[in-house]
Amino acid sequence: MKSVVFIGAGNLATQLGLRFKEVGIPIRQVYSRSLESAQRLGNLLSTEFITELEELAQADIYIVALADKAFHKVLSQIDFRNALILHTAGSIAVSELKQYSSNYGVFYPLQTFSKQRLVDFSSIPICIEANSDENLRAIQLLAEKCSDDVREINSEQRKSLHLAAIFCCNFVNHMYHLSAEVTEKNQVDFDILRPLIKETAAKINEMHPKQAQTGPAVRYDENIMNKHLGQLKGEDLMKELYARISKSINHYQNK
Amino acid sequence: MKSVVFIGAGNLATQLGLRFKEVGIPIRQVYSRSLESAQRLGNLLSTEFITELEELAQADIYIVALADKAFHKVLSQIDFRNALILHTAGSIAVSELKQYSSNYGVFYPLQTFSKQRLVDFSSIPICIEANSDENLRAIQLLAEKCSDDVREINSEQRKSLHLAAIFCCNFVNHMYHLSAEVTEKNQVDFDILRPLIKETAAKINEMHPKQAQTGPAVRYDENIMNKHLGQLKGEDLMKELYARISKSINHYQNK
Repeated sequence: MKSVVFIGAGNLATQLGLRFKEVGIPIRQVYSRSLESAQRLGNLLSTEFITELEELAQADIYIVALADKAFHKVLSQIDFRNALILHTAGSIAVSELKQYSSNYGVFYPLQTFSKQRLVDFSSIPICIEANSDENLRAIQLLAEKCSDDVREINSEQRKSLHLAAIFCCNFVNHMYHLSAEVTEKNQVDFDILRPLIKETAAKINEMHPKQAQTGPAVRYDENIMNKHLGQLKGEDLMKELYARISKSINHYQNK
Repeated sequence: MKSVVFIGAGNLATQLGLRFKEVGIPIRQVYSRSLESAQRLGNLLSTEFITELEELAQADIYIVALADKAFHKVLSQIDFRNALILHTAGSIAVSELKQYSSNYGVFYPLQTFSKQRLVDFSSIPICIEANSDENLRAIQLLAEKCSDDVREINSEQRKSLHLAAIFCCNFVNHMYHLSAEVTEKNQVDFDILRPLIKETAAKINEMHPKQAQTGPAVRYDENIMNKHLGQLKGEDLMKELYARISKSINHYQNK
């Protein structure tokens, strides 16, 4: 079994590290610039943790799970001795690893990760890419231990997935947040919306979002929409979003 | 058992009618202006269907499930003989029924309904309101047959729930739609996003959306955000939404 070192100890490294542990992939070491993060994840994965790059151990595979802006700053300090380097980022092309090793690829689990919440890894799509067939096979073996849904996705496609995920995850969650702002302002418990949130997401398993769309903006019912804008008096950001998203719904439903 | 007549035969009337049937509430008749809708729902509920208001049967309870703009136009043509009238709309105050009967109230199931998809009614919050304690008890009995989650919600609160539902259902679904636009344009199957959509919604059962928020807009990472705006070249509506929702995320996360 190949040995793995994690460079980075954030949400993704945590969840991926736990999955590796669960399926028996040996984790040699964890690096983070922050002692607190390094120690926490090292403890969790029962492995060595370091905060200095000079102490980086030799391994078969390095998993890079860094914030985009730290990416090159950290990697340029490391001599990888041509070990296999995998990055886990949606928005970084595979070719950006070329300067650090002759063996490199991408291991991108398409999911939202929080430290506090364990996810069911077996159904998470893992998007893989590599600089050679041999490396692709090695990554595939690793990925298939972690998930039942492994797909070869090139850098361009992955970039578009990362953008799509902003819409269907980050922006969706913000819509939840705005709905909480509305109910809480009116002394209604946010929890009353939970079945609606659940069903809205569940529908998407059976139909395309275009077919699933409901609400006043589909038929551009200005009577209801103006009532809603009136209710948002004083909340300029929300009002603006209400109007623009309604316009966008109407545009894309009739495209 | 009190007898019920449905005025309206759309998505909500369909789902509610099926639930009534399931739990044994007798449905006397279904009215719709459209013969096709009336017939479809009449057949589904094994009951009489009519398209002329003069043929409306006498019943203990009339359930009004009409589009907002047809509401008064239809109701003003009916002599309800002081039977109990319930409307099912989020955005209409209970008092708007006053002119039609001395017994009236609201029966508002907070959920998104499509004709093609059966929902688990027992967990749908039903928001009730009435013009008297006696009518409230009658509505409560009816609602508790349909759902385990019945709540007394006044007209102001219901109005805010209706608005909140636009954000966490209609707008959320539109974000799904936009993510599909992005993936499909780049020859990636939309289905790869389904686990992410599921997890994003599931998180909300455990945490408040403010805590669940992730992504570049939280830390206002302009580097990634500008990359994404570049990818949306030529898609002006989406670009505009990307920028404004990101701004709103940053505002509400730091509020």
